[in-house]
Amino acid sequence: MNPRFQFSIHATDGKARTGVIKMRRGDIRTPAFMPVGTAATVKAMKPQDVRATGADILLGNTYHLMLRPGAERVARLGGLHRFMNWDRPILTDSGGYQVMSLSELRKITEDGVTFASHIDGSRHMLSPERSMEIQRLLGSDIVMCFDECPKIDQPRDVIARSMEMSMRWAQRSRAAFDAGGDHAEGSALFGIQQGALDESLRKTSADALTAIGFDGYAIGGLAVGEGQEAMFATLDFAPGQLPLDRPRYLMGVGKPDDLVGAVERGVDMFDCVLPTRSGRNGQAFTWSGPLNMRNARHAEDTGPVDPQCICPTCATYSRAYIHHLIKAGEMLGAMLLTEHNLSFYQQLMQGMRDAIAAGSFAEFAATFRQNYL
Amino acid sequence: MNPRFQFSIHATDGKARTGVIKMRRGDIRTPAFMPVGTAATVKAMKPQDVRATGADILLGNTYHLMLRPGAERVARLGGLHRFMNWDRPILTDSGGYQVMSLSELRKITEDGVTFASHIDGSRHMLSPERSMEIQRLLGSDIVMCFDECPKIDQPRDVIARSMEMSMRWAQRSRAAFDAGGDHAEGSALFGIQQGALDESLRKTSADALTAIGFDGYAIGGLAVGEGQEAMFATLDFAPGQLPLDRPRYLMGVGKPDDLVGAVERGVDMFDCVLPTRSGRNGQAFTWSGPLNMRNARHAEDTGPVDPQCICPTCATYSRAYIHHLIKAGEMLGAMLLTEHNLSFYQQLMQGMRDAIAAGSFAEFAATFRQNYL
Repeated sequence: MNPRFQFSIHATDGKARTGVIKMRRGDIRTPAFMPVGTAATVKAMKPQDVRATGADILLGNTYHLMLRPGAERVARLGGLHRFMNWDRPILTDSGGYQVMSLSELRKITEDGVTFASHIDGSRHMLSPERSMEIQRLLGSDIVMCFDECPKIDQPRDVIARSMEMSMRWAQRSRAAFDAGGDHAEGSALFGIQQGALDESLRKTSADALTAIGFDGYAIGGLAVGEGQEAMFATLDFAPGQLPLDRPRYLMGVGKPDDLVGAVERGVDMFDCVLPTRSGRNGQAFTWSGPLNMRNARHAEDTGPVDPQCICPTCATYSRAYIHHLIKAGEMLGAMLLTEHNLSFYQQLMQGMRDAIAAGSFAEFAATFRQNYL
Repeated sequence: MNPRFQFSIHATDGKARTGVIKMRRGDIRTPAFMPVGTAATVKAMKPQDVRATGADILLGNTYHLMLRPGAERVARLGGLHRFMNWDRPILTDSGGYQVMSLSELRKITEDGVTFASHIDGSRHMLSPERSMEIQRLLGSDIVMCFDECPKIDQPRDVIARSMEMSMRWAQRSRAAFDAGGDHAEGSALFGIQQGALDESLRKTSADALTAIGFDGYAIGGLAVGEGQEAMFATLDFAPGQLPLDRPRYLMGVGKPDDLVGAVERGVDMFDCVLPTRSGRNGQAFTWSGPLNMRNARHAEDTGPVDPQCICPTCATYSRAYIHHLIKAGEMLGAMLLTEHNLSFYQQLMQGMRDAIAAGSFAEFAATFRQNYL
């Protein structure tokens, strides 16, 4: 396969696995949570502070970056890493999901998707070939296949036809990626399994992807409103349909309890806007569950957001101060809570990695669920 | 006077002076620029990063803090320094200026001002005695007298009557401050000269304040729309009316060229929201003058905001990236430009301090004006 993308599983515990992905820009410890840097910035964070939370890799959004500042411009400026001052791995999505959820006037054909920008209405096109080109221009370390992410509540035959087209697009993505010579520069390509909640469609998708061959495999089309129970039911079979020796990446997930349940079911990688978006909205994640920092009960609380947390926010600032900042609409409130939430997510991942290595994941998960309300 | 507030002038050059104010929480190098931390935060900045720009002292706003989170609450939480994690000196204004510019339904009497909060319409009162109490509850290091700041374009007799009331309020502020025992804790009290642009009113005000006796003297009532020429004309005489051996603080000023002209005329201390507010609005201050980072000419400029600047933003990020962040409305753009602007202001102050010490202030000012367009 790819000599510059080496995944080693160091320990397993039930279906849960812990290990490391070695890439030229650095190691990615798994299970891994990737903070989302949509528009070439993890919102409200300096990159060195993102790194200090324990993040090994960021996610960048092809859809947003192609529209602003533009992939060719990022390339002229030396690539996404230099542009945003992040020298470790970056995974870019393919634009397939955002083009469906954010753009206007979409038209989907076998060739690809034409759409109008949500920023200025300008016309654009995405296809497997253009998505690979954009991700190459950005300088992505982990490139995602271009796929269609259908609405989850559609009839089986609609889901099936969409998945089948995504598999043809995966083949075209593979061909375009290989033609671009990205492997020589050390980047990797992940396929994306589709098929919604249907076990046999998921199996068909997994087999098609495995036949093509990828460095890693994403589980797509979940966390789109199906609810945790349906997601977990799908994760009871979907990861096992994918190659055992390749990383499995559950896209767009999730809440802390989603992460624990997904790792338990064999998932290795995650991304989600929840810790950053919630931080800007005044929500703090803690080992006791989420807290709404706007709540008046925090107004004179001199304790930290989470007494178990080791982040700079909890080491330095009181709940009373965070409450004040959020109430006053001060940017520092968003900055401090984003830093805390990202740190909390990384502490959760580290806790899971340690528990898997120690063979005590079931106890870790049980304790987590007991405390996380 | 006050043994815990010691002002030493180390060098003079024309009317310009450089020295240090020694206080229990740290030294303040003069001429000094104080970043504004209105609501217990310098907007978009962590306190350690404010300190790293070279700031020796912050300004906090009594009006904002009395309304939210409330002075008594701040006191219960251990004071403003602990609340916001800033252990160096803090100067608090008296609330007199903001109550006139921000509040609603104001009623001014000899006793003080009653008004409605601009946040929730609740009724509040400020007087010399209440302002001293609030500043004591906050734990202020440099307390400002409660004064009235009249509109600059009013008839002379209106300005005169307002100034005379402010002088009576200064006497009451002094008495209330002394009764509060703040001196024993090491805080200082500054008087505020009024009289708008009128030399004889300014002299009357200065004499009244000097007769009362303060640790330092502010020049109030300027930077309220009179323009730089009228401000400088007033600064040609106002600082000289105040005691030579006490710090002179020009409130609410200003643009970089305002600071140079005011130091040239004998001013020692400044505060202004301009570097922070401009940073959030996409304006960068440089040795070549202000830059609008939204301008498309920066879109592919790989150079720093200011090639002469030593701040982390200029050491790390391109104009192209800052331009992108500002255009995209990303918080990091505000964070990085605020940090740059505050650092630029401190580098300007350091340049002036060094030039005064070297006896080359005139050359410094001439070079500054030649380059700053």
